[in-house]
Amino acid sequence: MASKSFYAVVAGVGAGTGRSVALRFAKAYPVALLARKPESYNDIVAEIKQQGGEAIGISTDTADEASVKAAFETIKKEFPGKKLAAAIYNVGAGFAVKPFLELKAEDLQNSLASNAGGLFNFAQATLPQLLDSVPDAPYPPTLIVTGATASVRGSPRFATFAAGKFAVRALTQSLSREFHPQGVHVAHAIIDGVIDIPRTKAWNPNDGKPDGKISSEAIAENYWFLHTQHRSGFTQELDLRPYVEKF
Amino acid sequence: MASKSFYAVVAGVGAGTGRSVALRFAKAYPVALLARKPESYNDIVAEIKQQGGEAIGISTDTADEASVKAAFETIKKEFPGKKLAAAIYNVGAGFAVKPFLELKAEDLQNSLASNAGGLFNFAQATLPQLLDSVPDAPYPPTLIVTGATASVRGSPRFATFAAGKFAVRALTQSLSREFHPQGVHVAHAIIDGVIDIPRTKAWNPNDGKPDGKISSEAIAENYWFLHTQHRSGFTQELDLRPYVEKF
Amino acid sequence: MASKSFYAVVAGVGAGTGRSVALRFAKAYPVALLARKPESYNDIVAEIKQQGGEAIGISTDTADEASVKAAFETIKKEFPGKKLAAAIYNVGAGFAVKPFLELKAEDLQNSLASNAGGLFNFAQATLPQLLDSVPDAPYPPTLIVTGATASVRGSPRFATFAAGKFAVRALTQSLSREFHPQGVHVAHAIIDGVIDIPRTKAWNPNDGKPDGKISSEAIAENYWFLHTQHRSGFTQELDLRPYVEKF
Amino acid sequence: MASKSFYAVVAGVGAGTGRSVALRFAKAYPVALLARKPESYNDIVAEIKQQGGEAIGISTDTADEASVKAAFETIKKEFPGKKLAAAIYNVGAGFAVKPFLELKAEDLQNSLASNAGGLFNFAQATLPQLLDSVPDAPYPPTLIVTGATASVRGSPRFATFAAGKFAVRALTQSLSREFHPQGVHVAHAIIDGVIDIPRTKAWNPNDGKPDGKISSEAIAENYWFLHTQHRSGFTQELDLRPYVEKF
Repeated sequence: MASKSFYAVVAGVGAGTGRSVALRFAKAYPVALLARKPESYNDIVAEIKQQGGEAIGISTDTADEASVKAAFETIKKEFPGKKLAAAIYNVGAGFAVKPFLELKAEDLQNSLASNAGGLFNFAQATLPQLLDSVPDAPYPPTLIVTGATASVRGSPRFATFAAGKFAVRALTQSLSREFHPQGVHVAHAIIDGVIDIPRTKAWNPNDGKPDGKISSEAIAENYWFLHTQHRSGFTQELDLRPYVEKF
Repeated sequence: MASKSFYAVVAGVGAGTGRSVALRFAKAYPVALLARKPESYNDIVAEIKQQGGEAIGISTDTADEASVKAAFETIKKEFPGKKLAAAIYNVGAGFAVKPFLELKAEDLQNSLASNAGGLFNFAQATLPQLLDSVPDAPYPPTLIVTGATASVRGSPRFATFAAGKFAVRALTQSLSREFHPQGVHVAHAIIDGVIDIPRTKAWNPNDGKPDGKISSEAIAENYWFLHTQHRSGFTQELDLRPYVEKF
Repeated sequence: MASKSFYAVVAGVGAGTGRSVALRFAKAYPVALLARKPESYNDIVAEIKQQGGEAIGISTDTADEASVKAAFETIKKEFPGKKLAAAIYNVGAGFAVKPFLELKAEDLQNSLASNAGGLFNFAQATLPQLLDSVPDAPYPPTLIVTGATASVRGSPRFATFAAGKFAVRALTQSLSREFHPQGVHVAHAIIDGVIDIPRTKAWNPNDGKPDGKISSEAIAENYWFLHTQHRSGFTQELDLRPYVEKF
Repeated sequence: MASKSFYAVVAGVGAGTGRSVALRFAKAYPVALLARKPESYNDIVAEIKQQGGEAIGISTDTADEASVKAAFETIKKEFPGKKLAAAIYNVGAGFAVKPFLELKAEDLQNSLASNAGGLFNFAQATLPQLLDSVPDAPYPPTLIVTGATASVRGSPRFATFAAGKFAVRALTQSLSREFHPQGVHVAHAIIDGVIDIPRTKAWNPNDGKPDGKISSEAIAENYWFLHTQHRSGFTQELDLRPYVEKF
C-alpha cells in the first residue's frame, strides 16, 4: 500500500542501516533523509531516484533542537501537503569503549546528546505530525528507534554508551505508553550484533561464519513489518541477532 | 515462496489463534493441525482444503509424550517425504485464576504439564526434523511459541498460570541459544492482551474500544514474518498488544 | 529480637546453604529442618542444640503434598503453640545439564516438581501460618525462596532446569503481589554463582580466586536481613554473586 | 566495625533519604555530606556531631565536574589521611512529569545531567579512592546508587525522568561489571514507592495506609547492609517498596 500523500523520514542515514531503511520505505513513500553531512545521504537520494522513488536529503544534527526544527521546515517546503507516515531514528553516535576511569565527561555528554537528546528532538518534531496522520494513513503512523545490545546491558567499558542507549529505551517505553492509545505506534528494535555494513567489513564476529553479521536489509524488512502491524497488535520491542550470536 | 516438499505443524488449534496461524501457513505449506478433539480442527481442515490448501487434523494431547509421538507417526504417513518447515506451539490450557490458597496442586500440575510439558514434547518431536530441514528449507526452519502477559509477570491470583508460562519462556530461551547456531529459529511471542476470538466475544477489555482485542489474523501475520526472517537477524522475543492496552 | 513463641522452617537442608540458613535463624527461633533423608539434617539439629538452640528434623519430600502436610502436623506437635515467623524454601533438585535432545520428559518433570511443585506445597502449608503471625511476629512474617542464574536466563543445555527455576520465580512474584499487602513478605534471591559447600569443594569457578564461590554463611546473612526488613520497604528480589563472577 | 581511618561520602543530602543514610553511616565513619546548598546539610552535620559523630558539609553541584573535584579537594583537607569506605549517590533532581509534547529539551538535559551526569562525576571522583581502599577497608569499599521505579519502567508522562534513571542504571551495571572484580562493590537500589520524608508529608499513596510510604531509615539500613556484604556475595540490584504498593 504505497501512498504519495504521505512521506517517511529517516534520521541517521549513511552507508548502513539508514540506507537500507530509506530504500525500503522509499518503495512506498517519498523519503526525507537526515544526516550531518551531505556525503552521508547524497548517494542514497540518487539511488532512490534512480529506482523511481522520491527522496530529499537534509544536513541535520539531531542533537541540536534548532537543526531538527529547520530540517522539518525544509521538509514542509519540499514535500508540500504531505503527511508523515513513518519516522525512523537510527542515530548511533557517542560510541566510546574504554575503562571507566579513562572516559571523559564529554564522552557521556556525547552519548546522551546523540542518543537520547537526538531522539527527544526528533520525537518532538515528528509525533505531532504522526498524530495528525492517524485518521487517514495507510498504516498506523510509526516511530521506530534503533537500539543495541547496550540498550539492555551495561557491559564493562561501555558505561557511557550504555547510558545513552538505556535512556533511549526509556524514552521509547514512555512514548509507547503515551502515544499507542492515540494511534501512533512507537517501537524499539534491539540490534544485538554487528551489522554488515561497509564500516564493519573487516570485522569477523562469530568466527567469520556466513551471515554472522546482521544484514541491514533484514533490519529494514523488520522495520517495514513493524510499520505495517495492525493496531490491534503493536510490538513495543523486539530483538534481532545473527543465528550464531552468543547471548 | 511456497513449497509442497515441506509442511508446517500447528499445535493447539481451535477457533482462535491456532486457526488463523494454520490458515496463514497453509498458504505456503501443507499443514498438520493438532488438537485434543476433532471438533477443534475439522472445520479448519475443511476451510483450508476449500481454499486449495492441504491439511490434516490429528487428535493429540501435547502434554502426553506418547500422543505426540503417535501424531508425528501419522504425519509421516499422511505427508510422506515432506520435511518440516515450521512448528507452532500455541497450547494454552491450565488457566486457573484464583487466590493462591484456593489453588490446588493439580492446578499447578495442569499448567506446567500443558504449557511446559507440552512444549517439551512438541520440541523433542519437531527439533530433529527442523534441523534436518536446515540445508534446503525455503526459510530458516522455525519453532514459534505463543506466550502471554503471564510469561513475564507473576500477577496476583495467576500463580500457577504464570508458573507454566514462565517455564515455557525459559524453554524457548534455552532452545534459541542451543538451536539458533544450528540454523533453527526459535521465537517466543508475548501476547499481552485479550485475543479477539469467539471465546472472548463477550469480553470488553480496554473499554470496548475498536481493535481493543488482538486480531488473531494479526498474530498469524507476525508468526509468518518471524518464520521468514533472515538468519542474520533472528528475533528471539517480541511483544504484541492492542494500541489501547495498558502496560 | 529472638522469640521462643515463634519458629522458623527451612526446606532443603543439607551440607550447604540450608545448613547455614538454619544455623542463622536458630539464633533467633526454634527451627524445623526439612530434608528427604535424616542424614541431611541430623548433624545440623545436633549442632544447633549444641549451640543452645532448639531444632527438629523431619524427613520430607516437598514435591509430595501429603509429605509436606505430614511434616507440618509433626511440627505442630513438636513446637506446640508456636507460630511461624519465617519459612525458607531452598530445595534445588532437578538439575540436569544436557543438550536438549538428550533430555527426557522426566528430567523436566523432576525439575518442575522439585522446584515449582515443592514451593507450591510449601507455600500452601506456610502462608496461612505466616498470615496468622502478622499481628504479633517480631518481624514481618517471611517466605524466602532460593533462586539461581537459571531463574532469569535459559542457557543452552539448561532447558529443564531453567524451566523449573523460572516457574519458581513466577510463583514468588505472584505470591509477593498477593501477600505483601496482607503483611507477609515474600522474597526471591537469585544466587548467581557456585556456592562454597562440600559438594562444590573440587570446583574452581572464577579461576579459583579466593571467595570466587559464594559463602553459604553470606547467603544466610542476606536471608536474615530480608526477614528483618521493615514493611515499609520490602525487597522482592535481589541477586548475589561473587565479586569475580562474570555476568 | 567502625573505623576512623575511613570516611563515607553521601551526595544528595537533604531532609530525606540522604539524611538517614548519612546518620546511619556516621555511626561507623566520619561522613562528608554533599548538597547544593548549606541549608540542606547544616542541620544534619550538627545532628551527627551531637550524636558524637564526625561530619562535614560541602556545597556541591554534582552535575558540575569542577564542583565535584573541588568538593573532594576539600574533603582531602578536612579528613586528612582518611581513605574512602563508602560513597552513596542519592541525587534525584530532574523530575518533570508532563505529557511528552509539553516537555522541553532542558527537561531532558536536567534529568540526564543531574542523574547520569552527576553520577558520572561522582563515580570518577570516588572510584579511584575506593580502589585504593580495597586492601585494608573494614568492608568491601562500596558505591551505592539510589534508583526509582522509573529506573526500570518508562511510564507515560515520565519520559525525561525515566531517561535519566535508566541511564543511571546502565552506569551502575557497567561499573559493577568493571569494578567488582577489583574488589569495589557497586549496587543499585530501586526505590519503588514514595519515601516518607517532609516533602511528601501531605502525600497519601496506598490509600494512606500505615507504612505505605518507605521509611528513609529503612533505606539507610538497606544501604548499610549492602555496604557490609561479603565479597563472595555482592548484590548488584535490589528493589524496595512498601508492603501495600502495587507493582
